[in-house]
Amino acid sequence: MASKVVDLRSDTVTKPSEAMRAAMAAADVDDDVVGVDPTARRFQAEMASLMGKEAALFVPSGTMGNLISVLAHCDVRGSEAILGDNSHIHVYENGGISTIGGVHPKTVPNNPDGTMDIDKIVAAIRHPDLHYPTTRLICLENTHGNSGGKCLSAEYTDKVGEIAKSHGIKLHIDGARIFNASVALGVPVDRLVKAADSVSVCLSKGLGAPVGSVIVGSKDFIEKAKILRKTLGGGMRQVGVLCAAAQVAVRDTVGKLADDHRKARVLAEGLKKIKHVTVDPASVETNMVFFDIVDPRISPDNLCQVLEQHNVFAMPASSKSIRKLLKSY
Amino acid sequence: MASKVVDLRSDTVTKPSEAMRAAMAAADVDDDVVGVDPTARRFQAEMASLMGKEAALFVPSGTMGNLISVLAHCDVRGSEAILGDNSHIHVYENGGISTIGGVHPKTVPNNPDGTMDIDKIVAAIRHPDLHYPTTRLICLENTHGNSGGKCLSAEYTDKVGEIAKSHGIKLHIDGARIFNASVALGVPVDRLVKAADSVSVCLSKGLGAPVGSVIVGSKDFIEKAKILRKTLGGGMRQVGVLCAAAQVAVRDTVGKLADDHRKARVLAEGLKKIKHVTVDPASVETNMVFFDIVDPRISPDNLCQVLEQHNVFAMPASSKSIRKLLKSY
Amino acid sequence: MASKVVDLRSDTVTKPSEAMRAAMAAADVDDDVVGVDPTARRFQAEMASLMGKEAALFVPSGTMGNLISVLAHCDVRGSEAILGDNSHIHVYENGGISTIGGVHPKTVPNNPDGTMDIDKIVAAIRHPDLHYPTTRLICLENTHGNSGGKCLSAEYTDKVGEIAKSHGIKLHIDGARIFNASVALGVPVDRLVKAADSVSVCLSKGLGAPVGSVIVGSKDFIEKAKILRKTLGGGMRQVGVLCAAAQVAVRDTVGKLADDHRKARVLAEGLKKIKHVTVDPASVETNMVFFDIVDPRISPDNLCQVLEQHNVFAMPASSKSIRKLLKSY
Amino acid sequence: MASKVVDLRSDTVTKPSEAMRAAMAAADVDDDVVGVDPTARRFQAEMASLMGKEAALFVPSGTMGNLISVLAHCDVRGSEAILGDNSHIHVYENGGISTIGGVHPKTVPNNPDGTMDIDKIVAAIRHPDLHYPTTRLICLENTHGNSGGKCLSAEYTDKVGEIAKSHGIKLHIDGARIFNASVALGVPVDRLVKAADSVSVCLSKGLGAPVGSVIVGSKDFIEKAKILRKTLGGGMRQVGVLCAAAQVAVRDTVGKLADDHRKARVLAEGLKKIKHVTVDPASVETNMVFFDIVDPRISPDNLCQVLEQHNVFAMPASSKSIRKLLKSY
Repeated sequence: MASKVVDLRSDTVTKPSEAMRAAMAAADVDDDVVGVDPTARRFQAEMASLMGKEAALFVPSGTMGNLISVLAHCDVRGSEAILGDNSHIHVYENGGISTIGGVHPKTVPNNPDGTMDIDKIVAAIRHPDLHYPTTRLICLENTHGNSGGKCLSAEYTDKVGEIAKSHGIKLHIDGARIFNASVALGVPVDRLVKAADSVSVCLSKGLGAPVGSVIVGSKDFIEKAKILRKTLGGGMRQVGVLCAAAQVAVRDTVGKLADDHRKARVLAEGLKKIKHVTVDPASVETNMVFFDIVDPRISPDNLCQVLEQHNVFAMPASSKSIRKLLKSY
Repeated sequence: MASKVVDLRSDTVTKPSEAMRAAMAAADVDDDVVGVDPTARRFQAEMASLMGKEAALFVPSGTMGNLISVLAHCDVRGSEAILGDNSHIHVYENGGISTIGGVHPKTVPNNPDGTMDIDKIVAAIRHPDLHYPTTRLICLENTHGNSGGKCLSAEYTDKVGEIAKSHGIKLHIDGARIFNASVALGVPVDRLVKAADSVSVCLSKGLGAPVGSVIVGSKDFIEKAKILRKTLGGGMRQVGVLCAAAQVAVRDTVGKLADDHRKARVLAEGLKKIKHVTVDPASVETNMVFFDIVDPRISPDNLCQVLEQHNVFAMPASSKSIRKLLKSY
Repeated sequence: MASKVVDLRSDTVTKPSEAMRAAMAAADVDDDVVGVDPTARRFQAEMASLMGKEAALFVPSGTMGNLISVLAHCDVRGSEAILGDNSHIHVYENGGISTIGGVHPKTVPNNPDGTMDIDKIVAAIRHPDLHYPTTRLICLENTHGNSGGKCLSAEYTDKVGEIAKSHGIKLHIDGARIFNASVALGVPVDRLVKAADSVSVCLSKGLGAPVGSVIVGSKDFIEKAKILRKTLGGGMRQVGVLCAAAQVAVRDTVGKLADDHRKARVLAEGLKKIKHVTVDPASVETNMVFFDIVDPRISPDNLCQVLEQHNVFAMPASSKSIRKLLKSY
Repeated sequence: MASKVVDLRSDTVTKPSEAMRAAMAAADVDDDVVGVDPTARRFQAEMASLMGKEAALFVPSGTMGNLISVLAHCDVRGSEAILGDNSHIHVYENGGISTIGGVHPKTVPNNPDGTMDIDKIVAAIRHPDLHYPTTRLICLENTHGNSGGKCLSAEYTDKVGEIAKSHGIKLHIDGARIFNASVALGVPVDRLVKAADSVSVCLSKGLGAPVGSVIVGSKDFIEKAKILRKTLGGGMRQVGVLCAAAQVAVRDTVGKLADDHRKARVLAEGLKKIKHVTVDPASVETNMVFFDIVDPRISPDNLCQVLEQHNVFAMPASSKSIRKLLKSY
């Protein structure tokens, strides 16, 4: 008897649902590079509205969404962006904002809850000086992946937004899992990103679309973003096929995220009962469970191999920690 | 009575066929960022084989295919690439190789047939000198779009390849429409790109897939390309949905390109009979028809508007020329 | 008997005069990075005044002067600069505007007189389009080195300036040898650069200072230039020692340039009488003499070696041409 | 009676001695861009020998010395450099390694003694992964300016060098004040930088030359550095005039640094007796004195103004701290 596979590695391994596949097959499409794909236009308009921003743009990945956003806000040579030292942009995106975009990062320590201390953000903002680059952007990440999917509150985000505004700089939110934060906090997603000049939202992680992210912001921002997307090679032709699936993902999956979060906590509580591992179920705010192995004889790699023999897939996060993400649709 | 639309603007406005849509809906997919999407793997292997190269990589667009290729070959700061002054990379890709990649372009004039004179290419190669960047790449384009879809012969390409090789530099072919060249010349596509270190092939132009290009080259090149694709934000998750459509496009459309070319020549011959416009049918080698308006009272914009009222779509190429492309599948 | 050396290689090999050395030794200096070096301030004010611009900045080299100028005008990512295909910036400055600055060059052919055709400049200016970088700068070079030191007239420069202005783009003049042009044309140097938004002037070539160039432009331009100079590492401390020598160079040498030009023509006329070489004395407008060797048995390298045995130093310009520059002070 | 000025602002405001001025005036010079300036050659050879490295290169500033070094080691796109979060390169050099060089910085916290914890350096080194840039460089700073001129020991430097070597990455030392460290530690300067692949040494700070820094390393490194210097515009013509002064600075000033350090401690001990300020004399290892004002009614700006009225110049380091540097020659 083939036992069922339980894949807890990451919410990036989700596969498109039947409804998404049907939507792709039936999508009404045209050349999006010249802006006439009807499905892309409709989806972008819906996402802009949902996020409470003027405009939206579909992009091939969250990495490109963040890269375009940082580059659009930091379009003048000599820009510096403030971001968390444990943020996805700083750690997992190839340093692209520097190596491709020439933007200098100024990191501020991420607290265990994914925030950066407000006074440290303020201290990181440069005053005008011949020796300094110009601070043009602050980046937040909500939920904060490397902190185990912690949520940033609307109040915290607003406060950072006020600081940014008062210094004439922009606020970008890497909202790859912003819907998870919205659901976990019980705060509408547009409220949660109200203070942001731009947000990048992943459609393929928590939401399960096969491909893509969307960035939202002002019309001016999206106009700049379109040029950058073309420059980077992210302008796609009949992209409506992907937007159609993404539209289904947003429609069908957001309502199920609360259940993902509940399952994650159940998992954490179960793990807590197991000797040899430590985990704090209270720290599980959304769809991620990280636990540490306290038995020195067991390595995360070993454990994952054993789990795999039982059709349970998990992912080592470090030499002593294992990461699991829950995703359903 | 709704008359049939004849859309002759560009082969980028093609829409996916029913077979492509069905393939997307049925595609077996997984997370391609970690390299396990089975449809992407199969499609890439097939394309590598078809093009006679070791490996292949699916990318979101031809612009990204070219950008990744140029950056992979010019990975050391201070690189210069030789390319046609009328090439797609130089004219239509936002100058991305410089503005994003820091590569200095050295242009050589494109002849009306899309070639660059061999002696001018040789003269453009830099010798080592404190004042010079280092020539690391020559780029060809086949078919050559701005020359009206002209084909570069295998012999010409081989000669440029020999020059590149003898100087220790690489040869990239922007083969957005390389299948058109192969069909028009009656030369297998792998023979046509034999001398190239990398080729970018568009799947959505002549071939009609909804989204994507593929780049091919050595295993080492593709390993570099994967990192660059991730950096640029072109790494996509369940990309098999797009590869499935592309696979159908390659399978079903290559055989129909000869008919596209025939129709283009028929169109050119018909246009030749029309007073007020000039066109040389002999110059129509593949699927593009450019004609000039000789009557000073008619502008390309006006003519396109009138044509549109008759459900014929065409595209002004300049202030006195109109461009039409033919595409069928 | 030690015969006198006649060094005709380049005006970059000039050595500082006694007056320059004395000025260096006596210079009143302070920390120029914070802008308080009195000699630098005085020299920069004088140069701004002489060139008819608001402000000036001393920089370590002509290459940095051009690089800063291009980067200051093209400070937004995605910029394109129009420049001559045979210009010093494009050919001899390591492609730094791209490799360091991310600016995309769009070359226009240089005519034998150093100009670019006005209509070709106009055609090179991009209109707004998703596929195009943004044209932000036109660069001229006066005198034009690779054309043998030809002078651009004030009228030509004005015309290019009008085009730039009417398109909202900037005009930079690489005026490494602008004083030679001024003297040869009999036109005041400020008149000659009236249409320019910035000019880079070499102090060590025609004028004989040991080190340095100066860039001039509006106060805003110079403020941007100061930051770029610091970023590139061209901010120097007690730089008054160099400015003192440069001040002497400008004071003492400009008046001698006419004699340089006269000597160059004398040399050309003498060379014309020599069988085996061809030269057009009428083409010698300033301090450069290029001549071709018509005897296939003699290479420029050979000839230079023979000349050196007679204490005459010259420099091969290419495989069949020899370059000589005259410089006196 | 004009009272004597005591200028304690920074060792960057030193002025050239009579011996330096005489050396400048008498320097034997030639065109260093082509590598034939005899004074530059001699000085560079001496500095290479003194620092225990194969070769040396004179550059206009410490910022350029660091920029060239980082770019030479990180010459491949996608490089990351590990450096102190409070290092001069990260804080005071305009973010040039990113904004001009496209290098991604990975900061590690600087301890109060200027070191970075070894285990944090090791943790910052990236393993190969599609999401990561490639670590190619570690940068140390000795003495460490923002830590008040603290010295890094030879042992610490060796340990970092071993880590670098074992991971196949390079070690650069920003040795702007390496001679101060050498004198304070009583360790020969070549021993102190033995583990480094490159060192940037300032000639104008502690040593009092009017202009310039020198970088040292292997012949290969210096060959790369020459090209980068030219690209950045740091190649200067008759630069022997500056090297001559620098040579005097190295010869005459190194022996006086111990006295600088003694005076700094005397100053700190004196300050310690003053109510309203706090300072730890034991923390004064070299030529810098930082003290905090504890009286909330006094700001650093106010105090500096009052001091200036008594012909004592000092510099505010932050809103509650004052910085003084001692320099004699």
